[in-house]
Formats: sequence, C-alpha cells, structure tokens
Amino acid sequence: MNSFRTETDLLGDLQIPENAYYGVQTQRAINNFKISNHKLYQYPIFIKSLAVVKLAAVETNFELGLINETLKDAISQACLDLLKDQYFEQFPIDMIQGGAGTSVNMNANEVIANIALEKLGHKKGDYQHCSPNDHVNLSQSTNDAYPSALKLALFQSSKQVTNALEKLFFALDRKAKEFENVIKMGRTQLQDAVPMTLGQEFEAFAFTLKKEIPYLQDQAFQFLEVNMGATAIGTGLNAPKGYAQLCADKLATLLNEPVKLAENLVEATSDTSSFVAYAGALKKLAIKLSKICNDLRLLASGPRTGLYEINLPPKQPGSSIMPGKVNPVIPEVVNQVCFKIIGNELTVSLAAEAGQLQLNVMEPIIALTLFDSIEILTNAIDTLRVECVEGITANTDHLRNEVYNSIGIVTALNPIIGYKNSTKIAKQALEENRSVYDLILEHNILTKEQLDTYLDPKNMLSSH
Amino acid sequence: MNSFRTETDLLGDLQIPENAYYGVQTQRAINNFKISNHKLYQYPIFIKSLAVVKLAAVETNFELGLINETLKDAISQACLDLLKDQYFEQFPIDMIQGGAGTSVNMNANEVIANIALEKLGHKKGDYQHCSPNDHVNLSQSTNDAYPSALKLALFQSSKQVTNALEKLFFALDRKAKEFENVIKMGRTQLQDAVPMTLGQEFEAFAFTLKKEIPYLQDQAFQFLEVNMGATAIGTGLNAPKGYAQLCADKLATLLNEPVKLAENLVEATSDTSSFVAYAGALKKLAIKLSKICNDLRLLASGPRTGLYEINLPPKQPGSSIMPGKVNPVIPEVVNQVCFKIIGNELTVSLAAEAGQLQLNVMEPIIALTLFDSIEILTNAIDTLRVECVEGITANTDHLRNEVYNSIGIVTALNPIIGYKNSTKIAKQALEENRSVYDLILEHNILTKEQLDTYLDPKNMLSSH
Amino acid sequence: MNSFRTETDLLGDLQIPENAYYGVQTQRAINNFKISNHKLYQYPIFIKSLAVVKLAAVETNFELGLINETLKDAISQACLDLLKDQYFEQFPIDMIQGGAGTSVNMNANEVIANIALEKLGHKKGDYQHCSPNDHVNLSQSTNDAYPSALKLALFQSSKQVTNALEKLFFALDRKAKEFENVIKMGRTQLQDAVPMTLGQEFEAFAFTLKKEIPYLQDQAFQFLEVNMGATAIGTGLNAPKGYAQLCADKLATLLNEPVKLAENLVEATSDTSSFVAYAGALKKLAIKLSKICNDLRLLASGPRTGLYEINLPPKQPGSSIMPGKVNPVIPEVVNQVCFKIIGNELTVSLAAEAGQLQLNVMEPIIALTLFDSIEILTNAIDTLRVECVEGITANTDHLRNEVYNSIGIVTALNPIIGYKNSTKIAKQALEENRSVYDLILEHNILTKEQLDTYLDPKNMLSSH
Amino acid sequence: MNSFRTETDLLGDLQIPENAYYGVQTQRAINNFKISNHKLYQYPIFIKSLAVVKLAAVETNFELGLINETLKDAISQACLDLLKDQYFEQFPIDMIQGGAGTSVNMNANEVIANIALEKLGHKKGDYQHCSPNDHVNLSQSTNDAYPSALKLALFQSSKQVTNALEKLFFALDRKAKEFENVIKMGRTQLQDAVPMTLGQEFEAFAFTLKKEIPYLQDQAFQFLEVNMGATAIGTGLNAPKGYAQLCADKLATLLNEPVKLAENLVEATSDTSSFVAYAGALKKLAIKLSKICNDLRLLASGPRTGLYEINLPPKQPGSSIMPGKVNPVIPEVVNQVCFKIIGNELTVSLAAEAGQLQLNVMEPIIALTLFDSIEILTNAIDTLRVECVEGITANTDHLRNEVYNSIGIVTALNPIIGYKNSTKIAKQALEENRSVYDLILEHNILTKEQLDTYLDPKNMLSSH
Repeated sequence: MNSFRTETDLLGDLQIPENAYYGVQTQRAINNFKISNHKLYQYPIFIKSLAVVKLAAVETNFELGLINETLKDAISQACLDLLKDQYFEQFPIDMIQGGAGTSVNMNANEVIANIALEKLGHKKGDYQHCSPNDHVNLSQSTNDAYPSALKLALFQSSKQVTNALEKLFFALDRKAKEFENVIKMGRTQLQDAVPMTLGQEFEAFAFTLKKEIPYLQDQAFQFLEVNMGATAIGTGLNAPKGYAQLCADKLATLLNEPVKLAENLVEATSDTSSFVAYAGALKKLAIKLSKICNDLRLLASGPRTGLYEINLPPKQPGSSIMPGKVNPVIPEVVNQVCFKIIGNELTVSLAAEAGQLQLNVMEPIIALTLFDSIEILTNAIDTLRVECVEGITANTDHLRNEVYNSIGIVTALNPIIGYKNSTKIAKQALEENRSVYDLILEHNILTKEQLDTYLDPKNMLSSH
Repeated sequence: MNSFRTETDLLGDLQIPENAYYGVQTQRAINNFKISNHKLYQYPIFIKSLAVVKLAAVETNFELGLINETLKDAISQACLDLLKDQYFEQFPIDMIQGGAGTSVNMNANEVIANIALEKLGHKKGDYQHCSPNDHVNLSQSTNDAYPSALKLALFQSSKQVTNALEKLFFALDRKAKEFENVIKMGRTQLQDAVPMTLGQEFEAFAFTLKKEIPYLQDQAFQFLEVNMGATAIGTGLNAPKGYAQLCADKLATLLNEPVKLAENLVEATSDTSSFVAYAGALKKLAIKLSKICNDLRLLASGPRTGLYEINLPPKQPGSSIMPGKVNPVIPEVVNQVCFKIIGNELTVSLAAEAGQLQLNVMEPIIALTLFDSIEILTNAIDTLRVECVEGITANTDHLRNEVYNSIGIVTALNPIIGYKNSTKIAKQALEENRSVYDLILEHNILTKEQLDTYLDPKNMLSSH
Repeated sequence: MNSFRTETDLLGDLQIPENAYYGVQTQRAINNFKISNHKLYQYPIFIKSLAVVKLAAVETNFELGLINETLKDAISQACLDLLKDQYFEQFPIDMIQGGAGTSVNMNANEVIANIALEKLGHKKGDYQHCSPNDHVNLSQSTNDAYPSALKLALFQSSKQVTNALEKLFFALDRKAKEFENVIKMGRTQLQDAVPMTLGQEFEAFAFTLKKEIPYLQDQAFQFLEVNMGATAIGTGLNAPKGYAQLCADKLATLLNEPVKLAENLVEATSDTSSFVAYAGALKKLAIKLSKICNDLRLLASGPRTGLYEINLPPKQPGSSIMPGKVNPVIPEVVNQVCFKIIGNELTVSLAAEAGQLQLNVMEPIIALTLFDSIEILTNAIDTLRVECVEGITANTDHLRNEVYNSIGIVTALNPIIGYKNSTKIAKQALEENRSVYDLILEHNILTKEQLDTYLDPKNMLSSH
Repeated sequence: MNSFRTETDLLGDLQIPENAYYGVQTQRAINNFKISNHKLYQYPIFIKSLAVVKLAAVETNFELGLINETLKDAISQACLDLLKDQYFEQFPIDMIQGGAGTSVNMNANEVIANIALEKLGHKKGDYQHCSPNDHVNLSQSTNDAYPSALKLALFQSSKQVTNALEKLFFALDRKAKEFENVIKMGRTQLQDAVPMTLGQEFEAFAFTLKKEIPYLQDQAFQFLEVNMGATAIGTGLNAPKGYAQLCADKLATLLNEPVKLAENLVEATSDTSSFVAYAGALKKLAIKLSKICNDLRLLASGPRTGLYEINLPPKQPGSSIMPGKVNPVIPEVVNQVCFKIIGNELTVSLAAEAGQLQLNVMEPIIALTLFDSIEILTNAIDTLRVECVEGITANTDHLRNEVYNSIGIVTALNPIIGYKNSTKIAKQALEENRSVYDLILEHNILTKEQLDTYLDPKNMLSSH
C-alpha cells in the first residue's frame, strides 16, 4: 500500500508519496506538466550540475555566516550523493514545463532538503529543520540557480561533441592519406571540372570539420559565465554582498573549469544569447556534416549507374524487394540528424526571442532541445566514423580512367593555347565523343611530348 | 543465460537472441543506429498501422492466388496479434535510421513471420516455411509499405489534435459567453484603442482555433492516399495486376476510412508533400496558440503593475524566492511546445527537400518528428484547457473603470465632431491627465445628454 | 526651386512639396522609415487594390447616406485614376514600416483626397472640402482597409504563380510523352534500383507540380475574405449598420471575384493565418521545385564522369577558366529562389506569431515578403520552363545500356526464384563485375527463353 | 538608333549594345536570369571589391612575369576607374543567378577588359589585345575570384552594422545614466517581481548589445580569408607557384586589412561556413534587438490601460480612425526587420547545406541575402537610435508609486521572517487588496523602524 505525507505551499495542501524525496512543488509540476516523455531524470548531467550549484551555494552561505555548520554539512552531503548518481529517480518532472525552471530548481531544493533531513535524523518533510527555500535555496533564486546549472551542464555535454568530432577528423585524415595517390576528376556544379586526388577530397572533409572544433569550444565557453547572486532579477536582492563572486569562484573550484561571474547580472539574468550561439554552432556543424554525407552518398552512388567512386562499408541489406542492393544508410541517418539539429536551432531561436523584460521564461525548452541536439549529434558523428568512414574504399581504376577520358583536362592548356582555342577543342571532343588528347594532336597544336607533359593529371594537382 | 539462433542475410551470419521475434535485419538496424532514445516500440500506433498494411497485403495476395490459405491465415493472425497490442517490445530499433524505412518494414516482416512460424508449429527463424521477404513482404517493397503505414498511422494520430482542439474551442466559447457583458478596452499596437467586451476577445480566440479544425482535417486527409502496389519505385514491378487497387480497398475496409490509391504511383513513391502540408498545418495552429498564450499572459500580468484584466488559475508557487508570486505557467508551457512544433516543421521541410530521384530517403526523421509534434501539441492543448482556460476569471470592475478613464472613447465622436477636433480633445486629455467626458463638456461641444449617449461604451461594441 | 505647402496633424506642422498629392502623414512615414529600397510604388497591384477598397467604401458610404454625391463622385474618380496606373509615384513610402499599415492607408487616403480636391476645383491640402480621414477613410480604419487591400492584392498576384505553374506542368508533361519509350534505371537512395522510363520520371515531375495548383488556389482563396466594417478592432465602431456586408458585396462586384465578409470581425482583424497558409503553400511548392531541380542537375551531370542521362539546353559558358564547360545554371537559379521562398516563409511565420491582442502590427513585413516571394517564384518557374525544360534532350542509348548492365533487374526474378537466391546472384554479379543474365544461365536457374522474358526491361515498367 | 557589336563564345554569336562595356557572357546572364529587381549595380561595394581582386591579380601576374607592363597598366587603370565609382551601370545582371557567380566574375572581367581596351586605343570587343578570360581572369577562376571578392565586400559592409550598433549602445547607455535613480518594479514572467531602477533596465539593454559588437567582428573576420590561387577546385591548376600567397598579400596591402590565404584551398573553395557564421551572428543580434523592441513597446503601452512606464517619442499619428493615438512605430519596424533577418539566415543555411563536391553553387543567393540583411539591419539600428531611444522619457512618479503599492517587496523580508511567513503576508495582501507594509505592522512582525529600513526600495537595488 502507498502511504503519503502532506505538504503545504502557497496554494494549499498536497499529498506526497511517503518515500518520495521530492516535495510539494515537484508534485505540482508532475501534475501540471504532462506534455512529453522527456523527464528530468533522463538528463543526469543536468541533475548533477544542479547539485554542484547547490553545493557551491551552501558552501558560500556557510563562509558568509548565513548557515550553520551542521546544516551546511547535511546539505553538502546530500549534494554529493546526487553527484554519485544517486536519487536520480527523484527527478520525475517533465523537461517541457512552464515557470522558467522553477520546478527544476524546487525539485532539486526539495530532494536535497529531504536527503539532508534524513542525514540529520529528521523525517522527510520536516522542513523546519532544513527547508528547500530558506536553506537549500538560500541566497538564490530559480533565475540564477537554474540557468547557471543549465549552462554548466551544457558546457560539460558540449565536450562530447568536440571529442567525437576530433575522432572523426582523425578518421577522415587517415583516409586522406590512404587516398593521396588516387587521382580522380573534381567536379563543380556536378559537371566534370579538373583532376584532383581522392585524398585531397577527404582532406577537405577532414579540414573543414576540424575548423569547427575550436568554434564549438568558443561558443561553449560562454556557458562558463554564471549569474549566481543575481537572485530574482539580477539586482541581488537577498544575496549578501560578496556572495556572487565567491559562489562563482567555488563553482570554478568544484568543476575545475574557468567559471566566471557575469559582468552585468541584470543583463545576464534575461540573456539567452549563449544558447543561441551554441545552437548556431551545432547547426553550422550540421550543415557541414550534411554536405559531407551528401557527397559520400553521391560518390558511392551506383554501382553501375552512379558515380561509383568510393565504396561505403555495407551495413545491412538495402531493400526488402531488390536483392543485392546495399544502401548508404549511415550517411543517410546522419543527414536526418542534421535536419533535426537545424530544426532544433530554430526552436532555440524562437524561445530566445520570446524573452520579456527581466527574464526569459522559455529556457526549459531551450534546455531540452540543446541536450537532445548534443546527444543525437554526438551519436551521429560516432556512428559516421565507426560504421562508415573508417571502412571506405576507393575504386581506383575507375577513377583514373575517368580522368583520362575527361574533357576538363583541356583546362591545363589555357596558358599555352588560350581559353578560346581550348574551348573549341573541348566542344569538338564533346560533340564527337572523342578525347582531348587525340584532338590536340590531330590539330597539330602541340607535339606528343608536350601534350604528355601538359596533360599529365599529376601535374594538375597543384599550382606549379 | 542468453541463447541465440543464427540468421543470415546478404551480409552474412548474425546471432539473434533465441527468444526474439525479430530477425537478422532488425538486429543489424539495432547495431547500426544507436542515435536516440526514441525507439519504435514507443510508437504503438505506427506498429499497428504496419500490421494493418501487412494484413491488407496478405489478404490481397491470397485473393490474387499468390499465397496459400494456411500461410495467409498464419500471417493474418500474426498481424491481428500486433493489433491487440502484443509483441510491441519486439520493435526495439531507433526511430532515427538510414535506409528509408527498410529497417522498420523488415522489423515488421520479421516479427510477423516469426509469430506466424510459431502458429504454424515451426521454430522462429525457420523462414523456408514463412519468409519475411517472400511471404510477409510479398508484392510489396519498403517504398510502398513503409510510407503507407506511416501515413495511415499519422492519420489516426491526427485525430487526437483535432479532438483536443475541439474541446479547447468549446471551453473558450463557454468563457466567451461567461464574459459577454464584461466591458473592457481593446488595444491595438499595445496602445489603448476602443471598447469591446472580454467575451468578444475570448470569442475571437475560440473562433480562430475552430477554423483550424477543418484545415487540419483537410491536410490529414491527404494521408489516406497510399501507394501500395508501387513496390520499389512506383512501377509496380513484382506486384500483380490489380493488386494495388485491391490492397487499397482492403485498407479502406480494415480501417473504415476512405483510403484511396494514389493516382500516379511513381510520383507518390517519392512525394513527401502530405507530410509538409500537415507539418505546416500544425505550425499554423502553433502560431495561433502561441499568440493566444502570449495574450493570456499579458492580460493576466500584474497583479499590481500589469494589465490585471484576467486571472489564470494558480497552479504552483511562482518563485523559489518571491513569496506569493504566481506565474502563468500553463500558457508558458504551451508557448514552448509551439516553438518546438515550429522547429519540427523546419526539420520536416528540410527532409522533404532532400528527396532524390525515385525516393525520399529521409522519411524516418519525418515520421519521428510528426509523431512527436502531434503528441506534445495534443498534450499542450489539453493542458491549456483543463489547467488554465476553464478556470479563468475576470477582474470586471477594474476593466470597466479602465474604459471610463480611457481616451480612446473619443473615437466615437469622429462622426459628430470630425477626426481633427477629436484629435484636439484627445491630446488635451492626455497632456492634462483629464477625462474626455469633462473636456467635451468644458468646450461646449456636446450637451451632457448627447455625451451620455455617444460615450456609452455599450454603444461602441458593434456597428449600429 | 521647390515650393512647399504646410500640413498639420496631431504632432504639428510639416512642409509638404507643393506638387505632392500625398500629405502630412505620408511625409512623416517617409521621414520615419528609411529602411530598405522597397518602396510602395514598386507594388502597383497593391496600390490598385487600395484604390478598389476606397472605391467600394465611398460607394457604400454614399448608398448609406453618409456622403454626398459630389464628394462621392470626386473620390470615385480619384480611385479610378489610380486604377488607370496614374499617380503611382505618389506612393514613395518604405514597404518596411511600423504602424501596422497606417502609413500605407493614409498615403492612399491623402493621394485620393488631393486628386479629388483638384477635381472639385480646390487646392491640394484644402482638406475641409475633402478630408483623407473624414471622407476618404469614412467608416474605415487602417485595420480593416489595409489588410483587405493587401489580401485582395495578394489574391490577384497569386494567379501569376498558378498560371506559371500550369505552363510548366504542360511543358513537363510534353517531355514525359516525348520520353515515354526511353528506358532507364530508376534509383532509390542513389543506388541502382529497377527499370523505368524517362517518361515516367518526367510524368512524376509534372504530376507532382500539377497537384500544387489547386492547393495554392485553395490557400489564396482565403484572401477573398475581407474585414471591411471592422474598423479599429472588429467591433465596427463608427461604421454604420449594414456597411460591412454592403462594402464586401461592392468589392465582389468591382473585382468580379467571390469576395466575402469575414464571419467574426474581431477575430479577422488580428488574424494573419491566411498569410501563413499561403506562405506555407509557396514553400511547399518551393520544396518540390527544389527537389526537381536537384534531380535535373543530377541527371544532367557529367558529361563524362556523371550520370549523363539528359542534356539541359546550354545557356552560357560555364566557367571563366574551364573551356567547354556548360553548367546547369537554370536549375541552379531556381534552387536558389526556392531557398529564398523558404526563408521568406519563416519571416511570415515569425511576424504572424508576433500579433498581440486585437491586432497584428507586423503585417507590413508580411506584405513585402509575400509580394516578393510571388514575384521571384513566378519568374523562376517561367525561366525553368522556357530556358530549360522545353529544351531537354535524352541520351537514349546510354540510358538503355545502363539498364542492360544493371544488377537491379534481378529483382524481377524474386517471384520465380525467391529473394534469397536472387540476392546470391546479385552479390556474385557485383563482386565479379558480371551480368545477371549470364550468371542465371551459368547456374542453370532459368532457360534463355524464360530469362529473355523475365529480364526484358519493358516487362518491368508496370505491374502485370 | 541602337547599334550593336557581335561577340562570340562557346555557344555562338550574340549582339551586344555598341556602347556597352560588358560583353557576351554578361549579355547571356541578362537574358538568362530575369528573376528579381536586385541588380548587381545596386551593390557598389561588391563591384569595387571585384575590382580590388582583379587589381591584386593583375599585379601578381605582372610580378610573376605572366603579363606585360602595358597590359598590366591598362587593366589596373580600369580597376581603379571602378574603384572611383565609375561604370557601375555596366553591371546590370540579376543578383539571383545560376552558375556560382560566373556571370558576376565575367561581368567584371568583360567590363575591365573593355575599359582597358579603350585605354590601349582599341575598340571594345577587340579581345585579342586584352581578353576577359586570358588577361583579366589570368591565374583565376570564378571559384576563387568570386568568393574572395564577395567576402571582402561583406567584410567592408559588416562595419556598418557594428558602427551603428556602437552608436546605439552609447545612446542606451546615456539613457541608463539618465534613469539611474528612477525606481520601478522589475518583472519576471510578466508578474510583479522586485524593485530595480529603469537605469538598470536600460543598462542591460546597452550591455547586451555591446556584447554583440566583438562577436560580429569575430565572425566578419573570417571573411578576410581568401582562396585566391585556388582556381577551379582548389588545386591551383593554371595558377603559378607563389601566386596564391602573393595575391593574398597584395589584397592585404590594397585594403589595409589582414587578408590572409586560406590554409586548405580545396576546402576553402567549397566551404561556405563563414557566411553561415555571419548570418548567424546577424540573427543572434536580431533576436536581441527584437526582444528589446518588444520590451520598449510593452513598457510604453497605455497610456491609460497599459504599463505606461516610459514614453517613446511620437513619430506620427497612430490611427486613421482613433484620434490622439500614438503608436510605437519605430520599435515595430525594427521587430519586422529582425524577422526578415531571421528568415534570411535560414536562406543562407539552406544554400550552404546545398553545396556539392568541390563547389557550392548557391553562393549568389547567399550574397544577395547577406548584403540585404546588413543594409536593412543597419538602417533599423540607426532608426531605432535616432527616432526612438534618444527621445525616450520616463513616467517617474507612476513608476515609484507602483513600487510602493507592490507585493513583491515582501521578498526583502525572507531573510528575516522566512519564505513561509512572507508567503502568508503576500497572499493576504493580494486577497484583501492591501499593502504589505500595513499588514506587517498589523501582525506585529516588525516595528515601523525596521520596516522602513527593510522595505526601502533603494535597499533592494543591489546585494548588500
């Protein structure tokens, strides 16, 4: 049988499951927000970040003489329990919620208070000894504790993306070296252009992704700016002098990261631009990944009626009806993740624009969206590397033949015979389905020796 | 201890858990797509829709003499088991997947085949007696079975939104009647305009949402067009003559909905415009809901420094630091859901644009995104109705006083004294902080009796 | 030397160029909004629509006895002058403006009043004889006249898109017939699938675009619902009883279109969902056009290292450096227009969501964005048809050879030898670079006669 | 009468107006791209940037011995003419174009060649003496010259935004100082929160915008990376060794900016991420500006039924029907510009994602979109400053009274009487419409002296 305890708040009494560490305000949030199947306990990094914030706060309060040692110890121990991955199931509220994160903050305050109460030998709910509001939330407001915890959690999470990206860079770079002598035709506007190596193509993939690593890190770095001590609207009402800086310093120490206090706390309390910047960086990366996956799918098209330049590792039968068909399922799934990231970025932008006056009440949807973007993008990058890139092979002979049969190599003759003459040769080659090489000889434009030098694809691979 | 059976496909052997009803291709999908925590079994309506499609297919195949009665019965029974909510845990694959839905289709084919095998007295995996490809998928391809099942599932789901919306309409309409005599100032551009009733304001909310019901239904109706019989690319290869129409008819009968066969099967196989249209309709609704929630939050602002026109039912304490504060948490959560819907619509658009040649390979992300949009939007609408709209009350006295103190009522004098004279009175009233009424008398523009008629707010509520 | 006259409004005096037909409020808008180079006079259809609205209003006012015949005639004549494409240069204000269209409405009111004044033998600015507010704007507000005029103008403009689309449909359909016997390989996921005809491919292009014509028309039809008589906020203050319906009827007569009065004028005055719906329809079309252009570019890729299936008419040299290169510049420009349309749709959505209380003040950006989308999309569609589609040719021999060399034709053998056996043949063909045909014979699976029937591509083009 | 000369290219002969400095390829672009009314000549900064690129190229070619001094001088002089704002009308092509900028590059090549020809005493079109391709475009391709010129033009343009932003920052900061003693109620979630000053509110506006200046500059800085010497696909074919670096150095000297050569030219040639980053930065700024304008409109709402906290300078009569109404037209127009910027950012993202293989062919729409975004955003920022912010005044008395009547000041008592007791007082105050001050006294919770200290709003303005 379930037993209950009664808790009370501004709105009256409510029954709370006896064994629950959360309290009345969490219960109200459970009742109010039945929106999605994304629950707070599925985001342990966020819960742990809340615990770190509460830990920093209680230590600061103790240091400033606002709380006694017994209470400080109990609250600190409760925070440490959360940091040891305990009590996560006590965070059952929906990530999509109104109230600008008040429910998340109070969920943390209540769970910590009740754990602390038990450590102090009291019963859960006996808040006169340790109150979620007066003690755990002391010198804080949702409007500083929540965004600070959220940003620090996102900072931690963001490392997953860059780590995955770095590994993908190395995998692509290894392929670039493996293919450095595989000559092929480059294409612009999907039309045959001039020769290059497959290695150059993969090197460009690698390089363009590598550039995103510091870019992502720069944006994530903004998450290290916290507004602790701002309390309700940034004026710091009810936070003692010195609290803000000290609390930020404690966070820096606890996390071993250069956490710093926001310069203008009123601005920081309503500002969501770090979320916008980071969502934009994820989108920028997604745009690049999507382009690369489009290219991989195109280069691997065929086998008989496509470009057939590279082979992706076969991962599963490609059709329930067409025997032998193997599809580029890994780049395909990455493309789709990228579309999700881009849609998610729009959600973040809309939520950011909807801030009003001293607060942006839409942060919970930003939180959910960014955590999800980080998770699926990281997984997609890892999947692309392990299940696809590392196993790519080249159809070297086919690629070489295409270069020799191409018309684009005539470009190399511009400096010798001029754009206009080269154009004539190219036109004739195309119309008569002949080779540029033969036509040059036939027109006595160059000797065979000259031609062999000028039209050697290897000489076309870089400026000289 | 776990025991395994070995299954084989184009790519070789794979170990499958002995008790699994899914087979080798599902297992490959499990291995390949570790992207998100959205699994197919969380979308029972989709699984059941797949079962209906497979049921219609096997009945059609039987009727056309392609399959014997024993097999038909076994496969049909397996489909009916799924329709009874059984075996859902056998659909463990990630909703975000490459392969254009092949993994979903094969997951269904394999589970149905293995259930059928057991019914026929065979062991799971003994596919010579009932094969996922040759029997369950007979006359089909992923490219017809998957989008058909998806669309039919979305059609079913879409009713949730319109049902919720209808209830919200009635709730708002009841409020409109309740408030029909509550006079207030209307506003344009956030500036005082002319009088109206709060009932008219809520009637506009109700009416504008009601208009979306048939619009949503119209878009959802497009989902009833299936491409069964198209097979791989719409040419119907390996589907017998007559199969397509007969199968569509069977679906209509099984679902008791006017399912119809697409007119051009090649077009239908790559076309994703019904998804775009429906995502657009959800977004159109979200834009309206977001505007209404913005209005509710604005009208309920205060209590002392806001508009204070209406009271939303208090749902939870509004602050961890500010006592007595109650926030409009329900409209806030709806706003956030709307931002998610709008972001999701972009994801669908991007996926739709990425179709190439005879197929759009990006349908899985479309599926996930639309199912999620439908679910959270439905929940948000229900929440808005139950937790907010039904409990709204009006601050009638405050509203009436605002009308009497307003300057905008001078507008009613335009037809009598002209826009230019009215402008002068309005300007003076504002500058000297006086009432329009007094100034008109003072300037001897109208008699008291005339004024009392012209400036009676009740006379301003409609054209006369 | 420029001479000026002085006009006065709520904010005081302002100098107006003597020869200007616009007045003080237009001049304020010129001064206030220096944002873009999009001026109202560049949108004659909008100006003419304003004139029609003013004409309907004055006729209604006359019929209801609110204005005398002399004034009615003068104002009507002024409106007719605008409808004859005169005085457009008198509309110099920026299309991007604040004020919810008040500047546009007053620009029309002022120009019409001054033309009327001249017709009546008065000087420009002598508004006691014919006032922009009291006479031209009689029984109206910006909030009904502006959106009504805008919607009617958009309705007219929308016909351009559907007309262009219809012509493109016919051009594609003619190509479909021209290519109906050109056999080729269909592709799914960029991998070789099964045979089809190039005619089927173009028929799908044609058909999918044709479906958008009634869809666009349905959305545009919503523009025929006007809110004349709503005045400031939909309550109809200062509009006489009967005015609203009569004015709507007059508009229907003047335009010879089924213009109708909105059912709920309060709702109609703030509702922008018809704009959202139409922007969404343009986007839906853009998504399809972009996909088709992507396909055309892919099918025309090469000439030597691409698919080389079709030839687009050469429009210009493709490179400043690569002789003989010809690029698919027409599909490319259409793709880019489509990206603009999609971005524009987002702008419309954002503006729609930003409506507040009794009005959406963001309509001017919606107006500009939709007019521009209609114009560039119409031009892009016409360009695609004339400069590209009509001149497309097929590389018939190359296409036929690809079918014969393909592996995908093995699909046709599923019903005879089963998916598993077909898979083995396909795998061997790919690995040993051999033909399916030879392998079937070698394995004695079928006789040559059987094979010639089953593998005849023509038999694969439809279900049978 | 118009006379013509005949020019010839790959596609044959074409008539060119005799007096035109552009040539055959420009003429083809004029004929091919009739899409929009955005013509290249409307973007002088782009034309001048092309001239700088061509100047750097010819100087480099001369230095490397590829061109003689006479030709070098003639071409250089032609470039300098363009830099003196001459010949702009010779760039009549549509900004929306296919061909990845080839038409823009050739337009520049042709105009420069013909100016040079005249300087050399030849007739226009006499290209053997100075050829658009062989001389003006020497060692270049569209694929390096076009994006380099575009990026350098955008870099120049980007300074407009940051300059305007800096001025707006100062204007807001001056207001912050002006309002530093104006006490008011802060709001969270549109509900009364705790006291702050209007100065703090404006300081937050100022500060949050100031942060965007270096952010925008950082993103714009990426535009200084050019890919000159890449030629067609980044391999540098036909560009001599040393050309790339030398040309980049010349650009740095000519522009007096730290232009640098891209590290990986293959990557740089297809990469569009600098556009994405910059469009994102503009959007991030737009999100902030939109939020601020929403706040300004809200704070200025009223005069009698709104917040009535601040007064925006009246710019124009606000209504064609409501006398005396003045609307916040300037923030409104800025909001709308912001929506356009956000839509434009999506267009850029879509175009960036559509790059394929060695090139992104969609750069022209990126160019148009970014130039337009920069222009209207700059104008909007200037307008906001001059026409609105600088003239804002505060309703100081009203603001002060709201603080004294508020309930939120009870928050200051938390540390003394606890959250629970404060909640009771707050609840009673609200329900009985009484003041917190009186209730505290009535309940004998604090003495009058204590209360006067604790509830002095001035003591609530910062942590202490």
